[in-house]
Amino acid sequence: EVAAANWIATSQIVAEIESDCIFVDTGSTTTDIIPIKDGHECAKGRTDFERSATGELVYTGTLRTNLTSFVDSIPLNGETYRVASELFAITADVYNVLGLIKDEDYVCATADGAGKSKEESARRISRIVCADLDILSMDDIKEMAEYIHAEQVKQIASGLKEVSDREGLDKVIVTGLGKDILCAEAAKLLGLDVKSMGDFYSDDECTVAPAIGTAIMMKNYLN
Amino acid sequence: EVAAANWIATSQIVAEIESDCIFVDTGSTTTDIIPIKDGHECAKGRTDFERSATGELVYTGTLRTNLTSFVDSIPLNGETYRVASELFAITADVYNVLGLIKDEDYVCATADGAGKSKEESARRISRIVCADLDILSMDDIKEMAEYIHAEQVKQIASGLKEVSDREGLDKVIVTGLGKDILCAEAAKLLGLDVKSMGDFYSDDECTVAPAIGTAIMMKNYLN
Repeated sequence: EVAAANWIATSQIVAEIESDCIFVDTGSTTTDIIPIKDGHECAKGRTDFERSATGELVYTGTLRTNLTSFVDSIPLNGETYRVASELFAITADVYNVLGLIKDEDYVCATADGAGKSKEESARRISRIVCADLDILSMDDIKEMAEYIHAEQVKQIASGLKEVSDREGLDKVIVTGLGKDILCAEAAKLLGLDVKSMGDFYSDDECTVAPAIGTAIMMKNYLN
Repeated sequence: EVAAANWIATSQIVAEIESDCIFVDTGSTTTDIIPIKDGHECAKGRTDFERSATGELVYTGTLRTNLTSFVDSIPLNGETYRVASELFAITADVYNVLGLIKDEDYVCATADGAGKSKEESARRISRIVCADLDILSMDDIKEMAEYIHAEQVKQIASGLKEVSDREGLDKVIVTGLGKDILCAEAAKLLGLDVKSMGDFYSDDECTVAPAIGTAIMMKNYLN
């Protein structure tokens, strides 16, 4: 039985950078938060189900995540708006509007089938509070987006804190599309020491990290 | 400009039952929480956007609501599982498993296109913690469903409390598909006095309440 566990392979590479650390990998959809000790990953959960309970899997990502999954309400202009429980907008819209991802990073489908311009992203974000771009200005949308960004950072930080407290690890290596805008921010929020895998490997190498990690595992297994 | 505002029409009927009250109407998708004083609705918000900020619209319902929109994590067997941010299961699955809705009430589409049996609902619920029915028993699923039910009651209660505190009203008239399992439970949680529109009108009449309300408005307008 082979589990879809990129995190096991990626942890091989991270362990070569730092033998005692937590690696935090936020992809398009999920975040892996994996403790490494003495050069070996030691995740307490072995399946996605188990990792949902250990802080090691936070099901939130840089692109595909439905905003209603982690935002209950949004403060704006002195009011607090409850969020609609539909799939109206995703995290890619938020980071698109904030200019935190590049156009070519928005690789997933949009929630409404419309385009990926900043204005179209802004319109989708307006809908989560039952509004539109006649009611809300672009400045309003940016304020909402900044709040949503901060909420997602807190969500990842809650898993990271659980792992850090339990394992007594305070060094963090971040990777994945959300490494700077989400993982590093979560680590900073907790006062942890952060390094980016991007300081050791190129972006292309980070992208194929699971493949490189698998090669390392194979090498170790054969030797 | 005619807004899709069933709540304005329905409030006409409720006002004939009780001239000073809050009426709480949980349908398949949303919950309207409307204050009535001296026989007239006096909702502070006039659009869905405004009502999202006043407690008068809580975007949560008896059937179509994505569980991840109001449940962040679920306690089970001594662990706390974070919930996946996908559309894996909806409230209809929860109330189906708990036997709180009838088979014929599950009128919306399922999240995975599969059937509407209790087992198929249970399988969808298991997925929200990245599990399946090999990992979780039917008793586990029922325990999860009861927790989810309680969370949705609290969500509705938060809007109801906002309206009740602001308007100084403590009588509640409940209606809609979720009147007993959600609205009345939310009112009881807050210690408010609850009456059901079902005690005054038949189920069929409750279903067409907006139409009857519109007729009353027309009559009042013409007289």
